[in-house]
Amino acid sequence: MSLTPEAIKTLSRVSTATITTVLLKKGLRNVWMRGSRPLRPGQPRLVGPAFTLRFVPAREDLATPESWSSPISTRTAIEAMPEGCIAVVDAVGVTDAGIFGDILCARMAKRGVAALVTDGVVRDLEGVLGTGLPVWCDGFAAPPSVAGLTFVGWGEPIGCGGVAVFPNDIIVADQDGAVVIPQAFLDLILAEGAEQERMEAWIVEQVNSGAVLPGLYPMISPVRGRPAGRRKSILRARSGRIRSSQPRRRRELPRTGYPLSPARARIGIRIRWAKRSTSSPA
Amino acid sequence: MSLTPEAIKTLSRVSTATITTVLLKKGLRNVWMRGSRPLRPGQPRLVGPAFTLRFVPAREDLATPESWSSPISTRTAIEAMPEGCIAVVDAVGVTDAGIFGDILCARMAKRGVAALVTDGVVRDLEGVLGTGLPVWCDGFAAPPSVAGLTFVGWGEPIGCGGVAVFPNDIIVADQDGAVVIPQAFLDLILAEGAEQERMEAWIVEQVNSGAVLPGLYPMISPVRGRPAGRRKSILRARSGRIRSSQPRRRRELPRTGYPLSPARARIGIRIRWAKRSTSSPA
Amino acid sequence: MSLTPEAIKTLSRVSTATITTVLLKKGLRNVWMRGSRPLRPGQPRLVGPAFTLRFVPAREDLATPESWSSPISTRTAIEAMPEGCIAVVDAVGVTDAGIFGDILCARMAKRGVAALVTDGVVRDLEGVLGTGLPVWCDGFAAPPSVAGLTFVGWGEPIGCGGVAVFPNDIIVADQDGAVVIPQAFLDLILAEGAEQERMEAWIVEQVNSGAVLPGLYPMISPVRGRPAGRRKSILRARSGRIRSSQPRRRRELPRTGYPLSPARARIGIRIRWAKRSTSSPA
Amino acid sequence: MSLTPEAIKTLSRVSTATITTVLLKKGLRNVWMRGSRPLRPGQPRLVGPAFTLRFVPAREDLATPESWSSPISTRTAIEAMPEGCIAVVDAVGVTDAGIFGDILCARMAKRGVAALVTDGVVRDLEGVLGTGLPVWCDGFAAPPSVAGLTFVGWGEPIGCGGVAVFPNDIIVADQDGAVVIPQAFLDLILAEGAEQERMEAWIVEQVNSGAVLPGLYPMISPVRGRPAGRRKSILRARSGRIRSSQPRRRRELPRTGYPLSPARARIGIRIRWAKRSTSSPA
Amino acid sequence: MSLTPEAIKTLSRVSTATITTVLLKKGLRNVWMRGSRPLRPGQPRLVGPAFTLRFVPAREDLATPESWSSPISTRTAIEAMPEGCIAVVDAVGVTDAGIFGDILCARMAKRGVAALVTDGVVRDLEGVLGTGLPVWCDGFAAPPSVAGLTFVGWGEPIGCGGVAVFPNDIIVADQDGAVVIPQAFLDLILAEGAEQERMEAWIVEQVNSGAVLPGLYPMISPVRGRPAGRRKSILRARSGRIRSSQPRRRRELPRTGYPLSPARARIGIRIRWAKRSTSSPA
Amino acid sequence: MSLTPEAIKTLSRVSTATITTVLLKKGLRNVWMRGSRPLRPGQPRLVGPAFTLRFVPAREDLATPESWSSPISTRTAIEAMPEGCIAVVDAVGVTDAGIFGDILCARMAKRGVAALVTDGVVRDLEGVLGTGLPVWCDGFAAPPSVAGLTFVGWGEPIGCGGVAVFPNDIIVADQDGAVVIPQAFLDLILAEGAEQERMEAWIVEQVNSGAVLPGLYPMISPVRGRPAGRRKSILRARSGRIRSSQPRRRRELPRTGYPLSPARARIGIRIRWAKRSTSSPA
Repeated sequence: MSLTPEAIKTLSRVSTATITTVLLKKGLRNVWMRGSRPLRPGQPRLVGPAFTLRFVPAREDLATPESWSSPISTRTAIEAMPEGCIAVVDAVGVTDAGIFGDILCARMAKRGVAALVTDGVVRDLEGVLGTGLPVWCDGFAAPPSVAGLTFVGWGEPIGCGGVAVFPNDIIVADQDGAVVIPQAFLDLILAEGAEQERMEAWIVEQVNSGAVLPGLYPMISPVRGRPAGRRKSILRARSGRIRSSQPRRRRELPRTGYPLSPARARIGIRIRWAKRSTSSPA
Repeated sequence: MSLTPEAIKTLSRVSTATITTVLLKKGLRNVWMRGSRPLRPGQPRLVGPAFTLRFVPAREDLATPESWSSPISTRTAIEAMPEGCIAVVDAVGVTDAGIFGDILCARMAKRGVAALVTDGVVRDLEGVLGTGLPVWCDGFAAPPSVAGLTFVGWGEPIGCGGVAVFPNDIIVADQDGAVVIPQAFLDLILAEGAEQERMEAWIVEQVNSGAVLPGLYPMISPVRGRPAGRRKSILRARSGRIRSSQPRRRRELPRTGYPLSPARARIGIRIRWAKRSTSSPA
Repeated sequence: MSLTPEAIKTLSRVSTATITTVLLKKGLRNVWMRGSRPLRPGQPRLVGPAFTLRFVPAREDLATPESWSSPISTRTAIEAMPEGCIAVVDAVGVTDAGIFGDILCARMAKRGVAALVTDGVVRDLEGVLGTGLPVWCDGFAAPPSVAGLTFVGWGEPIGCGGVAVFPNDIIVADQDGAVVIPQAFLDLILAEGAEQERMEAWIVEQVNSGAVLPGLYPMISPVRGRPAGRRKSILRARSGRIRSSQPRRRRELPRTGYPLSPARARIGIRIRWAKRSTSSPA
Repeated sequence: MSLTPEAIKTLSRVSTATITTVLLKKGLRNVWMRGSRPLRPGQPRLVGPAFTLRFVPAREDLATPESWSSPISTRTAIEAMPEGCIAVVDAVGVTDAGIFGDILCARMAKRGVAALVTDGVVRDLEGVLGTGLPVWCDGFAAPPSVAGLTFVGWGEPIGCGGVAVFPNDIIVADQDGAVVIPQAFLDLILAEGAEQERMEAWIVEQVNSGAVLPGLYPMISPVRGRPAGRRKSILRARSGRIRSSQPRRRRELPRTGYPLSPARARIGIRIRWAKRSTSSPA
Repeated sequence: MSLTPEAIKTLSRVSTATITTVLLKKGLRNVWMRGSRPLRPGQPRLVGPAFTLRFVPAREDLATPESWSSPISTRTAIEAMPEGCIAVVDAVGVTDAGIFGDILCARMAKRGVAALVTDGVVRDLEGVLGTGLPVWCDGFAAPPSVAGLTFVGWGEPIGCGGVAVFPNDIIVADQDGAVVIPQAFLDLILAEGAEQERMEAWIVEQVNSGAVLPGLYPMISPVRGRPAGRRKSILRARSGRIRSSQPRRRRELPRTGYPLSPARARIGIRIRWAKRSTSSPA
Repeated sequence: MSLTPEAIKTLSRVSTATITTVLLKKGLRNVWMRGSRPLRPGQPRLVGPAFTLRFVPAREDLATPESWSSPISTRTAIEAMPEGCIAVVDAVGVTDAGIFGDILCARMAKRGVAALVTDGVVRDLEGVLGTGLPVWCDGFAAPPSVAGLTFVGWGEPIGCGGVAVFPNDIIVADQDGAVVIPQAFLDLILAEGAEQERMEAWIVEQVNSGAVLPGLYPMISPVRGRPAGRRKSILRARSGRIRSSQPRRRRELPRTGYPLSPARARIGIRIRWAKRSTSSPA
């Protein structure tokens, strides 16, 4: 499925935390971009296809103010951004030169770019906030990009915050940062993400009513299929047992050699839980 | 002395800055947990005995959603936490996987855990803040713990932010972060901490009235024992002398070879000032 | 020109982002102090001559509370600070020991020190904020300076955040951090900084009215000299051409071997744009 | 299968590079201990069960020479090591304090310990080399362990070089460093490791005879099952095609959006290649 | 001038240390690739045009053994390398996954690739050394590239060790590491490099005969133009003066405010010394 | 005592490992310079008074080849070095610009400088090795010092590898790196260092004869005063007891709450062992 308006609407109700959990169950552990935090606290969740930009380190003969007028420049890249995209910028870990300032961010906002995500930093902090463009980045710095970076192109595979991002991968960004959903996994997230959110909301409610965690989260099989009323009575019975069994804990846990059955190590099992498990993680 | 309610009340009036100063005078320089900052600005100071949890790095066969149901899991650890404890979590420097999210923090709040302290990060930032559990951590990240960490146990000696923490060490956390008071040093802090705070408040007052620092902070012997009124006149006289002696500074400070008398290097001296000094540091 | 009150007034209207751009055009890329961020969001821009302080790492026989009373101490250094100066402190990258707390900051505020800039951290966060002294630093920590640092002097060349700072260099600090203007470059900044700010304000206005970036920022020669009205019509015509030429982009950009004419590599060219260019960077 | 002498003999012919490849095909990417390099170039490959030791950071009241006589000390841990084990030491990333010196290494050699593996460093470099104990570590440092570390126990799960190691996991160390084979994966490595080594030796031979890489490494299906003679003629024919198809490469590779079929993203496929693929990696 | 066999011969007599000095005089300070050291001590100096390869971080759905058979793979990249080129590989700072092992290096050696330069690491250390391919890298690791990296293409601008490298830039690698000569600067290095080497050899000779450094290195104007015999007598006279003036040093060096004339700060001056100076650096 | 030829002779028989142990017993844990390793394996131990040099980060207007001719330059600093000193250079953690090359090292060797110690790197690796000057450093790099560093003076307190070094402190460098002995501690090391070395040699001998570690190292009181023959029989008796008590270990070690008597935490005790203990560390 492509990123239809309906898909965007669905995803805007799925947290990045939930997305990383669902993807991890399929073997993807590395989809959250390190260093990329909301520039303004409380920015709402945003969803869009990745428009990638790429920098390499600065070389003094290339990274000059003159280069801003070259046909390969951040300026021309911005003019190529489609409405609704999320610009994802590979700043190769450079945090002492701002990739964009207020003028470029103002132009992006004007073009309808949904958000800017980068492992680098911005400059003209006050001005950037003033443009209203939602930004996820690693802070701010006064120097211009050319003090530390050379711009080399857009529309290419990049790394951002230690994560591989390809053009048109789906980006979701919220309070916890920004994650990539590879295109091939979009349907999965659309199918399981919302259900997962519903389940977790129910669990939080139970916890607030005093339920213990084991058996509830993740949910054990006798609980999972049942209607909400039946779930509670099973869990209540279980809570009693857990409390009384606490003192016996030590005996059951041999310190040398975890009780790892060989079967658990086989990938087949990983698939089984990927299918049967609808409950979720820490 | 054990951590009685009265001791907790006393400690809640002693800042972590003061605690580190008093401990340093006894030779303990490494008691402040790096990376552990208040998640919500303005969190009040909290005090409690350490309940330790330990992670090691993730191995894909162990760090799975399935592991959340194992008898050694963060869930069972939380059910073992006593009311009033401070959970201290060794996340081995991993900041791209959240050790806990909103559900686990909600349960900790429900159980009366006083606070969560870690050198790692949390996830579901908004949800965690919503639980009201006070948290000191190194930020937030969307991925679940198993994306980067394997949970291995609780109630063990751990490292947190480069500091050794043992179960039942006393933890104090405030605006400046979180520190550990080894049990054997509790009486010392109870005895000297409050006095140190009083002294510093008086010094700030003097500074606000225009007193110069040398002789006042740390307080010189002719000042320290005196009543407040007498202190002022000594210091005022001294201020004059300091100002006029400024131009002679250069002559008195040979640049090569600090005037380090051999005696100063002996530890005996360090003890002497530990006893006589009640004033405090930068 | 020396740092007259008038110069300070002029500089207080030039952002650190603009200063770094103007200096970069003269070949200075390394003038922004890494790690030094405003302690309180929204601190206004401040300008002053650098008063340098220098720490080296802690050695337990030297870095003691006793050392606070030595003739070479942070206390005597503070008493030597002239009104209006900006204290710049080399903390050799140590962020787990606070260089100053509330008492020392209170004294600096009392003496009329304009600001404190460091690549280290402060302690007694709440107290420091209470003194009203504007601080740019890398965060906060509970331990005293002697837990990690030995103070060795003031009025010397230092490194701060990876930047060389000499006594009486001009420091400007604002939302984007703190930069150094070498004395020899003061006239340049006074001459070009304000003009640059005016130009950028005009560009932002154009962007907000829908102008495209290429040709506008940086401004191309046919535009730069013209009156504002004429500029617009040139740019509007140009915008059309840029949009229609987009599809041809690929053909013009050979991927192997950037069209770097040998001439461009010569420093002579860099000088030429340094002279003719009044527009500015990302 | 447990680690019999025969298993050790088999593993001593399988390189750590091959082991990491076979484990990666089962989803284990994190089994190589960062920082752990052979102390003496040319050390032969060694195999043994892990005997784990654990340090936490130093706290001055605990990490003292006195602690060397405590019942929980590196000394007693060494006396508990069984012959043939590989001691794996979690030094929590500390590289400025040597975990062991010549005396402790001499005792380990005397007890028949097969090797020492750590992400920390040793001290008394010359003496340690003199004991003949094979060591994989992150270098050397003069200070004793207590300058930076507190020893807390043995026989526990640890992290070493960013990898989780459990007691009795199998350790293999050679020129490329040290890897862990989880117990549940031992049979897999015994079954596939040797075959993989044979296959790679044959491929190197082909490369030395001038074969091109694509189709050969990893081996394509039409080649893999065949006898060596038949393989060559298929590959030779293929080489011609590859060379002539070079110029057409560009056309086949759309730059935006990798040709990632949704199917490829499913974990089921990963299993299929895990089963059918006997050829190997970069 | 392009990289003719004659140019290669000339460059093979110019050290990377000299090249960085000559380029720095033109304003290029960032041309040496961090982390890239000779894998085998004593490797001779090598020169060639850059053939670039690019990795991004691993994503588990892309970085698989299966990817080794894709049309965009390290295998196809190697088959596209021209004889005599130097392969420069951007491994985005990943040092826990080997970019190439013995098989790929063997194929590169077979194709006549001059050398491999990377900020990453190799695997199969022993095998790689056996292929005879000269390698500059940041060490070795057992895991395959796909454990940490996704290969995305070749013939593109890359970053390597913090330096921008474009296809066909000239690479020179020797005992001190690897540097890039931008194409536009080739003529400069050919013209000045050899002369610089001759001058330095003469200076070393003088030093070994007892000459003092000031005036000799860098050479002062009265010395530089003269025949070797005349140079010596000038320097000898000067040495006497320097020795006797030592005691007066302190007085001449004001500690606050370096004697930085405004003129020195202008870029024009930098050009002047670039032209007149033939002596060289530390 | 000052650093007489006799003292140098004595120190040249005391390893840096032993020095750090003796100093740690007096409370000094931070005397070993991180990053400073022998450039040539097998360099003999060297001893001398520190001659300090100081760099700050590069600023392009100051760090120029022109600066090499200034009155404050590495050249004039070298001419001020007395015979037999050890030059200790603060390179502020910069490892991508060589502080010295072959010419400067040749001059230092000519002047009789005993050794060069730095946390930075050298350049012209081959040439530097050719001068015969013993060097402890953090590797090598091609670029000149001015690519990353500005030289600011000599004869001042510095930091080197995270350690404070003052002019005329005593430096000892060997296979394990370089350590500083503060002047006030020289007599202590002269008195205890040699005895410690003798004791350790005897212990190694015992270990090679099969003695167990507990009780031997560190030596228990009943053993320490005795003649060598008597020591052995005590230890032999003890070894039997240790072996048979192994199985009971678990019971004696409560996991929560280390048996830390309050007394142990008092500094007084640390002094007592400092006086009575002559045996030594890990």
